[in-house]
Amino acid sequence: MRKVIFGGANSLDNYFARPDGGLDWLLWGDEAAAFMKDYWKTFDTMVMGRITYEASLQHGGGAYPGMDAYICSTTMTPGRMDNGAIVVSDGIQLVSELKERKGRDVCIMGGGILARSLFEADLIDEIGFNIHPVILGGGIPLYYELSKQIDLELLECQAWKNGCVLVRYRVKKLSH
Amino acid sequence: MRKVIFGGANSLDNYFARPDGGLDWLLWGDEAAAFMKDYWKTFDTMVMGRITYEASLQHGGGAYPGMDAYICSTTMTPGRMDNGAIVVSDGIQLVSELKERKGRDVCIMGGGILARSLFEADLIDEIGFNIHPVILGGGIPLYYELSKQIDLELLECQAWKNGCVLVRYRVKKLSH
Repeated sequence: MRKVIFGGANSLDNYFARPDGGLDWLLWGDEAAAFMKDYWKTFDTMVMGRITYEASLQHGGGAYPGMDAYICSTTMTPGRMDNGAIVVSDGIQLVSELKERKGRDVCIMGGGILARSLFEADLIDEIGFNIHPVILGGGIPLYYELSKQIDLELLECQAWKNGCVLVRYRVKKLSH
Repeated sequence: MRKVIFGGANSLDNYFARPDGGLDWLLWGDEAAAFMKDYWKTFDTMVMGRITYEASLQHGGGAYPGMDAYICSTTMTPGRMDNGAIVVSDGIQLVSELKERKGRDVCIMGGGILARSLFEADLIDEIGFNIHPVILGGGIPLYYELSKQIDLELLECQAWKNGCVLVRYRVKKLSH
């Protein structure tokens, strides 16, 4: 079955964007480029919350070549938008259905609020973050309080020359 | 000059204890034991906030053999306690004075609130955390919002067999 992966870049204090959605603190480099080139090939679908979508629009995003893109929002109008992205109101139902369909993996972008509901519904299979060497001091949080603890298994850890630490974890499930 | 190091163990979602101070989720192992044996030798002083102190008392702490221990609190009575720890009201003044004295390094334990004031006063030289493979979902936070961004340089990254990722960073200071 295809996997659902909560992933992206974060600061050491677990923000994925500045309060205004700003991503100017993101670092690049040969290692990041090489990793991302292969990593993106494992996905054909991305799912994000409204806050992440709106922040991405402000910072040059909003195009999803070769990807099925879904935005989970209870305030936007459901359906396909001009840029091809599909707005749905129920993220849990969407991701449950995506898992049943054939395809490459599903990437949950940014979206601490969306991720919280997916964690609590046991729908996230892996976590992958590129921890940046910065304490932003404020911003859009990656993690919110959960009703339960999530145990993880470390799959991979890479320290890059630019000071980023890439970590990948498998979510342990009691039913496995 | 001796260094001031903000360090300890944390969950991936940046809690250093459960809401009740519980530390039952901490992992040990050969690598952790070997690292800590050498690491502790670099310190002769530990500084913590009241919340960390009270949580440590509930979980078997409160003894500081071979260490000068300070508790920063505006509600406890200043002075030396029966267990040898010294209560002071002004953490910034304390740590500023400790930096001027000769000695081994100073460890800032737990204490997200204390750490925040020390970060804002530019008194923290290094950060060292043992990131545990767990999302606790709630607890006592390591990081609070700051009035400024803290840029870091990655000094060390180790992935341990027990799934912990040890990271050490130098705090970059504009004046250096």
